[in-house]
This record gives sequence, C-alpha cells and structure tokens, in this order.
Amino acid sequence: MTSTPPDAPHGPFGWIAEQAAARAAAGLHRELRPRPAESDLLDLAGNDYLGLTRHPEVTEAGARACRRWGAGATGSRLVTGSTALHAGLEAELADFTGFEAALVLASGYAANLAAVTALTGPGTLLVSDAANHASLIDGCRLSRARTEVTAHADPAAVRKVLAGHSGRAVVVSDTVFSVDGDAAPLAGLAAAARASGAALLLDDAHGLGVLGPGGRGAPNGAGLAGAPDVVCTATLSKSLGAQGGVVLGPAAVIDHLVNAARTFIFDTGLAPAAAGAALGALRLLRREPERPGRALAAARAFHRGLTAEGLDATAPDACVVSVRAPSPAAAVRWAADCRAAGLAVGCFRPPSVPDGVSRLRITANAALTQGQIASAIATVAATAPAGAR
Amino acid sequence: MTSTPPDAPHGPFGWIAEQAAARAAAGLHRELRPRPAESDLLDLAGNDYLGLTRHPEVTEAGARACRRWGAGATGSRLVTGSTALHAGLEAELADFTGFEAALVLASGYAANLAAVTALTGPGTLLVSDAANHASLIDGCRLSRARTEVTAHADPAAVRKVLAGHSGRAVVVSDTVFSVDGDAAPLAGLAAAARASGAALLLDDAHGLGVLGPGGRGAPNGAGLAGAPDVVCTATLSKSLGAQGGVVLGPAAVIDHLVNAARTFIFDTGLAPAAAGAALGALRLLRREPERPGRALAAARAFHRGLTAEGLDATAPDACVVSVRAPSPAAAVRWAADCRAAGLAVGCFRPPSVPDGVSRLRITANAALTQGQIASAIATVAATAPAGAR
Ligand SMILES: Cc1ncc(COP(=O)(O)O)c(C=O)c1O
Ligand SMILES: Cc1ncc(COP(=O)(O)O)c(C=O)c1O
Repeated sequence: MTSTPPDAPHGPFGWIAEQAAARAAAGLHRELRPRPAESDLLDLAGNDYLGLTRHPEVTEAGARACRRWGAGATGSRLVTGSTALHAGLEAELADFTGFEAALVLASGYAANLAAVTALTGPGTLLVSDAANHASLIDGCRLSRARTEVTAHADPAAVRKVLAGHSGRAVVVSDTVFSVDGDAAPLAGLAAAARASGAALLLDDAHGLGVLGPGGRGAPNGAGLAGAPDVVCTATLSKSLGAQGGVVLGPAAVIDHLVNAARTFIFDTGLAPAAAGAALGALRLLRREPERPGRALAAARAFHRGLTAEGLDATAPDACVVSVRAPSPAAAVRWAADCRAAGLAVGCFRPPSVPDGVSRLRITANAALTQGQIASAIATVAATAPAGAR
Repeated sequence: MTSTPPDAPHGPFGWIAEQAAARAAAGLHRELRPRPAESDLLDLAGNDYLGLTRHPEVTEAGARACRRWGAGATGSRLVTGSTALHAGLEAELADFTGFEAALVLASGYAANLAAVTALTGPGTLLVSDAANHASLIDGCRLSRARTEVTAHADPAAVRKVLAGHSGRAVVVSDTVFSVDGDAAPLAGLAAAARASGAALLLDDAHGLGVLGPGGRGAPNGAGLAGAPDVVCTATLSKSLGAQGGVVLGPAAVIDHLVNAARTFIFDTGLAPAAAGAALGALRLLRREPERPGRALAAARAFHRGLTAEGLDATAPDACVVSVRAPSPAAAVRWAADCRAAGLAVGCFRPPSVPDGVSRLRITANAALTQGQIASAIATVAATAPAGAR
C-alpha cells in the first residue's frame, strides 16, 4: 500500500473511544462472557423455554441433518439453499401453528425485517407498538414507510391512528413483549385492524411453543391463525431450541415474500443443522404437549414468590418475568450476586429497555423443578439491592 | 420453471395478487425448488467455493458442536448466547485474517447491518459502491445516514464525494462483487478514504477463503488487514461452508459493536453447529492451503472456455463467472436446459441484478475436476440461446 493509515485514536474511529468512556462512566458498558459447555449455574436467563436445546433428541436431529445435508445451505433459498428438509420444516410449522404456509429464514430478526418490508409499499402506514422488539423497529425503519408508534398495548390508540389514514396499513405487534413478558391484546388489535381493513403482523417469538393449545402460539390461541389478513413471524431459537426464523401466513403472502423480501432473497438459507434441530423439537413438542404448561406454571411461581418477597416483578403471560432494579449499576451488581450464588439471570439496561428502567429478566422453562424454583426465588430476594423493594 | 402464483386473498393483501400477476407477465416470478440430499446434478450455483460444506471433517465438527453445546445458543450473545466455542472461532478468524479482533453474528447479512449502522452517527457520510450487496445497501438505509452511491469500482468518484464532505465518513464496498465476480480496487479505495480521513468498510463475503495468501481474504492480500482505519465483514456460509457472519477490525471497534450494534445485541447468537463447522472448515483450510488456488484456477478455466465458445462471460477475480443472457425469459430457459443436462447454474434476473441484465451465474469450487469443467463448458455452450453470443 502506498497510503499510510492514520494513528488511532485520532483516526476515523477516534469517536469510538469517547463513546466507550461515556458508556463506562454511566455504568452501561457491556462485554461478552463466554460460557463453558457444562456449568453448575442454573440458567434463568436464556430463552430455551421448553428445555429442548440440549435435549438429546433435538441435538441428534441437528447432528444428523448436518451430516446428511451438509454444514451449510450453500446459497440463497432461491438458488441452491432450499432443501427438502427446509420444505418439510415449513410444512410442519404451518400445520402446527394453523397457518396456510410458512417460510423459514436464517433468523427471527431476518424474518421480521422480511415481513415488515415486504408487506409495505408506497403509502403504507405502519402502526407499531411502543414496546416492539428491535427487529420489528428495524423493519419499520428499513421499509421507509410512515410509522406511527402507538402507546404500549393500546388497541384504542391503534384504532384512532388507523381512522386518520386512508390506504394500506399494517398493525405490527409482538404477541409477548420480550422485556416484561406481558401479552399483547390480540383480540383488540385484530378488531382495530379489521375495522379499517388493515393487516395484522404479529411477532410470536416468545409465544410459539408456550402459548395457544399445545404451544401452537398466541395467534392460534386467539383464533387468528390462518386468517386471510394475519401474518405471523416467530423464531426457531427460543422454544424450538435452534436458530432461524419463520414467517407464517396466507400462501399468497408467503409467495410474495419469496419474490420480494430482501432478507430472504439475498441471504444464505438456514443451515441444515438448525432446520433439523427445530424440526426435531417441534415433533417432540407435539408428542409432549404438557411442556408448555410446565413452563408457564414455573413462570407464575416466580412471579408469586418474588412478589411475596416484596420485589416488583411483572405478572407473566408467557415465560418471562422481569424484576425492577433501582439503577443500571444496581442491576449489574444484583445479577453478579445471583451469579455468585449459582444463578444466571438476565440484566437489561438502557439502551435495551425502551423505558430506561433497568431490570433483572428471569425466564422460566419446562425443565425446572419445584426445588430449583424455590431456591432461585430465595437467591434473588437475598441479593436484592436497597431500593428494589 | 414456469409457474403461476397462487390466488391471493382479497382484503388487506389484495394488492399482492396484482404484483404477482405483473411479475408472472414479465417472466420474473420465482419459486422455491427444494433439492434432495443426494443429486446427480453438478453444482455450479452454490457458494461452497472450497468444497467444504459436505466435507466429513466439517460436518462432523458441526455435529459434534451441536451435541456438546446444544442445538441453539439460547439467547443474545450478551446474555447466554456466548460460548467458549464462539470465542474460539472469533480468535481464530481474527488470527487467520490478520485483524485485531472479530465478532461472530448469526449471518453475513446481520454482520453487514451491524457494521454499517454501528459505524455511522449523526452527520456521518456513507460512500457506497453502486454494485454493493443488498445487505450493505440495507445497512445504509437502516443507518439513516446520508449515503452517496458512487459509480461501480471508481476510486476517483469516491475521492470526489469525500472531498465535498467534512466530518465523519465511511467508504463501503464489497471486495468481490457477488453478481459479476469482479474485485474492488482496494488500493485505490484505501487511498481515497485515507486522503480524507474516512474509514473503509469492506465486505469480503466472496473473498475470504479464496483471495489473499492461503485464502486469508482480500483485505489481507491488499495489506489492509489490521489497519486501524479498516473494518471487514465476511460470511461463514460460503468458503467456510456453514452459516453466520463476522466483523473483523480494531479491538475498540469490535467492542463498540458489542455495545451498539442492534443486529448483534438483539439477535440470538449463532447456533453452535454452525460455529463448530466454520471452525472445522477454517482449520482444514489452514492445513490445505492449496484449496483456494484450485478454486481460482477452475474459475479462470470457466471464463476461458466460455469466452472461447463466443459467450459473454466476465473475467473472474475470485470464484464467480457470470454469463450474459439476452432476456430474463431466455436466462430462465437456459438455466433449465443446463439443469436438464445435469448442471445446476444460477440464474440472476431483476430485481437481483443492479443493472437489469439477466445472467447465468456460474461458481467454481476447489473440488471440480478438469473433466467436469470441460463438460460443464460444453453444456453451457450447447444450451446457449440465440442472442447470447
Ligand atoms: C420478540 C422477538 N422477536 C424477534 C427476535 C429475533 O429472533 P432471533 O434471535 O431468532 O433472530 C427476538 C429475540 O431474539 C425477540 O425477542
Ligand atoms: C457480498 C455478500 N455479502 C453478504 C452476504 C450475506 O451473507 P449471508 O448469506 O451469510 O447472510 C452475501 C450473500 O449471501 C454476499 O454475497
């Protein structure tokens, strides 16, 4: 090279050092903490709600798919990246959830970007819940459509915004909100959308596998699965223990995504191991339909126990319970104290929380015993900082 | 290959039927064609440049990782989704490519969205090559920064745009362009960026594993790896045969992404099977450094042979050769005729091609024999439509 690079930190990334210093001063610096394969920590931080990600049937299904189909999909789903395994997974996901058709993508994030952007055109209005997941928000941004953010879980606000708009509109909401674990008012949202002829796009990332009959998902439970005006996204990385995302909806909408969704067309297909593992998990869930109920009962037990200890815990509609912390620094210390006592819990701080309130995020799963639940509650209570009660 | 889209519902998705009809009329409808696990087709359509995705060492590494670490990462890399396997893969990728640090994401698409958005702030100018990959373009859109699209592979144009801007800027380019397989003028881009104190962001999706010494990637080959003003993205889904993406750069930049990149923070970590398989492929590549040369030689043989047959084939700088077709419909028929003769080739039509020109896209890989190459050239020539010469 004839040109010489400038010296850091005065070079083009000099501003990064300033931002890092500001984050550190505010107690908001994050760093990765790689975990070992085996650990004595009780995991109440992950999203493996059904306890399937390390189930031998699921990992063997993943291992088998990797050997049989290869370690990668080798190309876009439109070129070489569609295997019979992907098609089979799509058929079973559609059948299980009650939608007409399904499309599998590389992640739930990609599924949300695909659905929001492909369902949006010139003049489309997006009506988006204030607590929606980052991937839905990024989908709204990427679509460049006008986006009206409505108050959290407020069908009346949705109705009002829609009434002031003529032309295409899509109402966009998580079914279960990822930070506080509360459910969206699905019936109210559907009625509001239908009153204006708007479409309804639901992200069931935290609902699939735990809500609806046998874990068929929140839209199925609300009678919205298979409706001609409803599209649903979900992830294969939580209850199904693998990786990947799915868009579920009318066949014509799925066909449209195949032709128009950039994060589908220009992305390599989901790796066979993940598709195989998700399919293994789905079949196991069908055979063991009591798993969702066990996970939900554990979540309710956490809420009851933590509330009885005087903590400010959210009432779970699925598997997530969040507990208010007095400050980001206190939340970090609280999570560290839990960890020292054998308990891995999530610690959510700005900018990952829309309202700026730091929290512990505790997730329940179907594999927890009564004893584990009781001792976890005791640990969280014993380590609670001043101001948490 | 011809197909009719399914009937669309009335209601909020009624417009989808109109778009589907217009696509069908223009010969631009796409549909999925799932492939079986074993096939007699010679694959010249995938991006498995080193022939590793079905290599037993790679698939066994994937299968082993799935069993040992679980089928999924269970959460965000910042919560439960970072394993020692991810950390090991990151260390080896950084070491191999010559960058200070690495961050692995769920896909190359996510890596590009992460890098472009996190390196952009208020007032940042993005200077983006007209032929950049969809994921870089979506990164530019998502960043909401002012983006100047410059003529393809034109460092002088980059220099001119940068000269008219004061403040932060990032020059963004593929190293190898995915449609035509030509390389970016890296030395010229680096000089242009440095003349204005701009950063350089390179997407080495089609370079890693085939370009640079031993496949260390195009930035390494150009003396740019490890520079304080250069960031590189790549995918684990092409030469490394798996799934996932990586951002490579100065440690402070990687730390910044951990703290600021939404498609990293709010996405589930890469599945262990994909991380394990990519690591297995990387180790195999280190042991067999002749693989990149074999793949590149095969690409050059395709170009020579197809050109000698009078076809309009691009001169490959890596493993992609594209061959002009006279129309979208002719390209579809041509690809179908190749397939009937035992050859899978890519068929790129609008809107997947920036210039509106339909093409066959032929990819070389390290596993091809001389005989396979010769017979593939003969097949493509024999099936060429009128107007292709
Ligand atoms: C509500 C919600 N939607 C989408 C996603 C993205 O799914 P994935 O991590 O599989 O990309 C997540 C979590 O990661 C989520 O919580
Ligand atoms: C140039 C380029 N960048 C990024 C990507 C995205 O990588 P991935 O498919 O792993 O998401 C691709 C292809 O898919 C590509 O061709």
